[in-house]
Amino acid sequence: MKKILNNPKNFVNEMLEGTIKAHPEQLTYVNNDIRCIVKKNLNKKKVALASGGGSGHLPLFMGYVGEGMLDGCSVGGVFQSPSSEQMLNVTKAIDKDEGVLYIYGNYSGDILNFEMAMEMAEIEGIKVEQVICADDIASAPKGEENKRRGVAGIFFVYKIAGACADTGASLKEVTEIAIKASNNVRTIGLALSPCVVPEVGKPLFALKDDEISLGMGIHGEPGISIEKIKPADEIVNEMMEAILKDHEINKNDEASILINGLGATPKEELYIVSRGIHQILEKNKINVYNTYVGEFATSMEMAGFSISILKLDEELKEYLAKPANTPFFKQFELK
Amino acid sequence: MKKILNNPKNFVNEMLEGTIKAHPEQLTYVNNDIRCIVKKNLNKKKVALASGGGSGHLPLFMGYVGEGMLDGCSVGGVFQSPSSEQMLNVTKAIDKDEGVLYIYGNYSGDILNFEMAMEMAEIEGIKVEQVICADDIASAPKGEENKRRGVAGIFFVYKIAGACADTGASLKEVTEIAIKASNNVRTIGLALSPCVVPEVGKPLFALKDDEISLGMGIHGEPGISIEKIKPADEIVNEMMEAILKDHEINKNDEASILINGLGATPKEELYIVSRGIHQILEKNKINVYNTYVGEFATSMEMAGFSISILKLDEELKEYLAKPANTPFFKQFELK
Repeated sequence: MKKILNNPKNFVNEMLEGTIKAHPEQLTYVNNDIRCIVKKNLNKKKVALASGGGSGHLPLFMGYVGEGMLDGCSVGGVFQSPSSEQMLNVTKAIDKDEGVLYIYGNYSGDILNFEMAMEMAEIEGIKVEQVICADDIASAPKGEENKRRGVAGIFFVYKIAGACADTGASLKEVTEIAIKASNNVRTIGLALSPCVVPEVGKPLFALKDDEISLGMGIHGEPGISIEKIKPADEIVNEMMEAILKDHEINKNDEASILINGLGATPKEELYIVSRGIHQILEKNKINVYNTYVGEFATSMEMAGFSISILKLDEELKEYLAKPANTPFFKQFELK
Repeated sequence: MKKILNNPKNFVNEMLEGTIKAHPEQLTYVNNDIRCIVKKNLNKKKVALASGGGSGHLPLFMGYVGEGMLDGCSVGGVFQSPSSEQMLNVTKAIDKDEGVLYIYGNYSGDILNFEMAMEMAEIEGIKVEQVICADDIASAPKGEENKRRGVAGIFFVYKIAGACADTGASLKEVTEIAIKASNNVRTIGLALSPCVVPEVGKPLFALKDDEISLGMGIHGEPGISIEKIKPADEIVNEMMEAILKDHEINKNDEASILINGLGATPKEELYIVSRGIHQILEKNKINVYNTYVGEFATSMEMAGFSISILKLDEELKEYLAKPANTPFFKQFELK
């Protein structure tokens, strides 16, 4: 295991210490628990947004805590849910009497803990709603969307709900726009190589030197198929076909694209994917509003990438275009 | 070779096509040559900044073309210099009669071509100055700074010279601040695994499963030593000791930190490095102005990272703090 770390037991906390040290103007933590991260400046009276989940997916989650996106998040061990108490502590710290919206991915451990935190928060008089993201079309067929895993598409939900909350919208309004964003995004991923959980010390799964796994989850969950490596354009075609078949997105619709590296994929390759996606969308006469390329939701050193397509309407576009300023994601207002 | 690409011969041009498609509001190209990238909006009358070099280092170079940084760049094959004609074409496209500053890394092929482009530009009546960055302390000892390679520290030179040029400063002034930034930055890198040049199809060098290479260059040039993997804090100590010994940076000085992933290193590990660096600087009473963490200058899928330390004064800090908006690097004004 060739990793830059000290004792694997301290991996998460040391990573969090380094994060707070790097972004002291934007991040801090509450309850003396470095796994309960909140925005440094919580003065604004507005609906608060929280997320959380296991470590190992940077910039998820604390990379998105800042202006225009999340107000806090709780972070668990690598690929492990944080506790409901940690979620509650974040909830109490960020609540401004306007209510709190939880936005998180569709994993049983996270659901259990967030729902428990929600009940505890309500006992303390904090109004909480939740939106569970399930954008990975490879993880369950159409018609069983509620069984799908949440992956990189959650970025769009943070961005849009965050911009909406900043306008002073009500908890109901922010929840509705988050649901709309979540319903309008589809993702499919591709893995080329596994990742290593520090405390385990060996790869989570194996792929042969010439194999790729279509639809593999960001914790190594099984995908649709294991195939031989093939040219980028063929891979992108296959992935885009799956998305366009699942998605109700048609000619003349407008979309935002997210091309997400899983951790070890060179940006050069992500841009070759960008070329393929743009060609397909042009052919299908789907208009591209903008394209994000980078690492938005990773699996540590896993090689591979995912494609997310967000179908836009005027309302979603307006919020997507607003500025954001977080440790990881910065955007000036889009034209 | 498990890479996301089509024909390796088309790797660079397809990557560039995907880049232009992803960032059409910021980037375009001139002379019908996609390897001659310029800023979309070149209306502002100011000193123009150009860079360039081989492909395989994204976000170098076109990731920094945009507001507050570069006006153009020329891009060669993987790890190959672009031609002097390409550099000249970019120069002519971006010149606004205020002169052009070339900022590039200390590699013989790039020097040859940029100097030839400079001569050709001057024949055409364009005033050109150049700053050659040589921040990699591992590549030559103190006293032989002009033999050092240019690596990730060039980011600081782009940022600071770009902000200075935006104020309407003269070519002489922009050149002087770029030289100051370049003189004030020191970098050292560490490689854990090699990268694969697409047209070659196999790794550039080999490291054993338990080996790391301290000071290796971003094209696989030999480093200071090959060592057994050890705890992150020991590695960071060794690297920071080398930087602090080389750098004239003292107690109560102020610095900006850049922690740069070389391509395949998880962000989690970069933040563990961040923790180590901050501990050492605190111990040495060197004040940290800000910290950048991410991929700023890569070697495709090479695993490893580099640390750059920029010593600040009031003037450098003022320009570092200014906003920038490029495809890769976005910054709101720093407080």
